[in-house]
Amino acid sequence: MSAAPYDQHRRQIEGFLVAFGMPEATAAGTAEIMAWADLHGIDSHGISMIPTYDAHRRNGKMRMQAIPRIVKQTPVSALIDGDGGLGHPTSRMAMDTAIAKAKLAGVGLVAVRNSSHFGACGFYARMAADAGLIGLVTTSASGIQVAPTGGKRARFGTDPIAFAAPGRDGEPFLLDMATTTVAAGRIRNKANEGLQCPPGWVQTKDGEPSTDPLEAREKGGFLTSLGGTAEGSSYKGYGLASMVNILSSALSGATMVTDPMHTKHPGTMGIGHFFMAMDPAMFRDEEDFRTDVISFCDAMRATPAIDPNQPVMVAGDPERRRAAIRLQSGIPIAPGLLTQLRQVAEASGAPWVL
Amino acid sequence: MSAAPYDQHRRQIEGFLVAFGMPEATAAGTAEIMAWADLHGIDSHGISMIPTYDAHRRNGKMRMQAIPRIVKQTPVSALIDGDGGLGHPTSRMAMDTAIAKAKLAGVGLVAVRNSSHFGACGFYARMAADAGLIGLVTTSASGIQVAPTGGKRARFGTDPIAFAAPGRDGEPFLLDMATTTVAAGRIRNKANEGLQCPPGWVQTKDGEPSTDPLEAREKGGFLTSLGGTAEGSSYKGYGLASMVNILSSALSGATMVTDPMHTKHPGTMGIGHFFMAMDPAMFRDEEDFRTDVISFCDAMRATPAIDPNQPVMVAGDPERRRAAIRLQSGIPIAPGLLTQLRQVAEASGAPWVL
Repeated sequence: MSAAPYDQHRRQIEGFLVAFGMPEATAAGTAEIMAWADLHGIDSHGISMIPTYDAHRRNGKMRMQAIPRIVKQTPVSALIDGDGGLGHPTSRMAMDTAIAKAKLAGVGLVAVRNSSHFGACGFYARMAADAGLIGLVTTSASGIQVAPTGGKRARFGTDPIAFAAPGRDGEPFLLDMATTTVAAGRIRNKANEGLQCPPGWVQTKDGEPSTDPLEAREKGGFLTSLGGTAEGSSYKGYGLASMVNILSSALSGATMVTDPMHTKHPGTMGIGHFFMAMDPAMFRDEEDFRTDVISFCDAMRATPAIDPNQPVMVAGDPERRRAAIRLQSGIPIAPGLLTQLRQVAEASGAPWVL
Repeated sequence: MSAAPYDQHRRQIEGFLVAFGMPEATAAGTAEIMAWADLHGIDSHGISMIPTYDAHRRNGKMRMQAIPRIVKQTPVSALIDGDGGLGHPTSRMAMDTAIAKAKLAGVGLVAVRNSSHFGACGFYARMAADAGLIGLVTTSASGIQVAPTGGKRARFGTDPIAFAAPGRDGEPFLLDMATTTVAAGRIRNKANEGLQCPPGWVQTKDGEPSTDPLEAREKGGFLTSLGGTAEGSSYKGYGLASMVNILSSALSGATMVTDPMHTKHPGTMGIGHFFMAMDPAMFRDEEDFRTDVISFCDAMRATPAIDPNQPVMVAGDPERRRAAIRLQSGIPIAPGLLTQLRQVAEASGAPWVL
C-alpha cells in the first residue's frame, strides 16, 4: 500500500481543494483538518472523501467559494450560515467563535445551518480543549441508513458526538463517536474480507438482527443504533442520535433528517452542526480541573486489563497512538482509492504529489 | 401488589422525609420529584430509595437539614455547594438557577458539588423543557459496578445523562439514560425470576462476557457500558460515562469516581451534578424550533414498525404512557419493599398512609 509523509498528504488534499475552486487560504485550513483525520487513523473522514466532495461540487450541491457568515449573535451565542459550502472552514470559524465567546463570557454556543460534511467531529472539540476549554460538537448527517429501535425504515445517519476536555498538554480527553454501533466503513470492511459481522451491527430490511455485512447496503437493511438490539438498549443510541439531530438541525434551522426532500433548502446538503466551548474557570480553578481530568484518565489507564497486552485506554488514546505511528511511516492509501484520486486529479487539474 | 393513588404515595414519601428531619417545604418539593419518578415507572428512583436514604442519614453521610448555596457565579453560570444534603432540593435549585440565567442571558450552566443521590435525572431536564428551553443534566454515581472496556476492575456507576427539548405541551422530547447497557435493577429482576440475561448485559470478574445475572453482584463481576462488548463498541458507553464524570465531578470539584477513598470530602457522598438550560431563541424563532422538534418526533412515531403492535416510540413516550396508567390505577409497591418501608416508618416515626 502506498504511504506518503503527512506533509505531502496534506499538500495533495490542498491541491484538490484549490483545483475544485476553493480560495487558497480556505483550502489550506481545510486540508489541515482532513489530513488530521487521516493522520489519526480516522480514514473515513480524510482524503477518502475527496471523490464525494468532487461529485457534490460538480452537481452543485456544495459551493467551494462559499463565505460563511454570522447571521445572529449574543455575547454567548452565534448562528452561522454556511453559505452551502464544505463544512470544514465554516466549522472551524464556528468553534473559533465559540472559543472567543467562552474566553470573554464563560461559554460560547454556535449553531450552523446551510453547511455540509465537516469531516472528523473530534477536530473541532479538540480545538476547545487546546484552548483550555471543554468542547462539545454534534452534526447531522446526509447518508440515511439507521432505523430507530422497533422501526424498519431508515431515519438516521451516523449522527456523531464529540466531547473534549483539557488534560496533559497535547493529550486531551477526546471522545468522538458515531451514535451507531459501528460506522458503515467497518461493515464494508467485513464484506470486503468475506467475513460475517458480530451480532448487533446490522439488521435486515424487516428489522431482524443479521450478521450479513451486505444487509446494511445492498440488501436494503440498516445499521443499528448504539446498543445493537432492543435487548441491548439500542433505544439509547437512538435517543442520542435524536439529541444530535435536535442540537444540530432543529436549533440551527438546517434540514431535519426527517425531511428527506429538503423542503427548507432545496438543492443543498442542508447539514447543521452545533458547537459548544465552556470555560471550567467559571466553576473552579482551571488547573484543579485539569488535574482531576488527568488523574481520572490515568486511573482508567491503570485499571487491570483483561488482556495484559491490551492496556485500558482513554478516549483519544487510540487515535494519538496511530498518529505517532503515521508520523513515522506515512499515511497509507489503499490501491483502489489511490486510482480514484488520480482520476479526480486528472479531471480537475489538481497537481499530483503523492 | 399494593397500589396507592399518586397523591397518597407522594404524601407517604413526604412523611418519611419530614420524619428524617428535612424541613417541611423542602420535603414537599423532594417528595414531588421522587413520586414523579414512581408515577413514570422509574421505580428505582422513587420510594424504593427511602431505606437507602434512611441508612445514609443515620450513618451521617447525608444531612437532611442541608442548606445548598451558590458559592460562585457569573451571568451564565453558578457553582452550588449541596451542603452534604439529599440531591433533590439542591438539584431543583440548580436547574431553577440555570433556567433563570438562560431566560436572561440565553444559557445557564450550573455545577453542583457536595451533593448526593438526586433521583431521576429526567425530572430536572424536563424542568428546562417545560420552560421552553433545552435541558441537559448529568450526575456522578456512588455505586461503582462497571469496568471500562478492556478492564477488569469496577470504575464507574451507571452515570446517567438526560436531555430534553420542548415539543407539544406536556410532551417534551425527554431522553434519560444510564450509560450502562442496562440498569442494575433489570439484572436483579432476571435473577429474581431465575432467568439468564441477554448477551452483553454483564461480564465476569475476569472480564469475560456472561449471561448469569448473579455475576453482576454476588460473583464479583460487572455491569457493562452501553454497547455491551468491545465488539459492540462498549468503548462508546465507557466514553460517555467518562464525559458524565468530567462534567459532573471534575467541573464542580466533587469526588471523582476514581477516588474511592473520598479524599476531597471524607465522610460524605461527594456526588457532583451538572445542569444546562439553553434558550433556542438565541438561534431561531422558538416556535419554529418547537415545530421542528414536533415534526421530528412525529416522523419517528410514524416509522413503519417491525411489530405492528409495537409502534416506534420517542424518548419520553414510554414513561408518559406508564404515568397515564398509574394515574388511573395507582402506583404499585412490591410486598418486600412495602414491608421494608413499614419498618422504616416505625423506626423513624413517619406516619403510615399507604
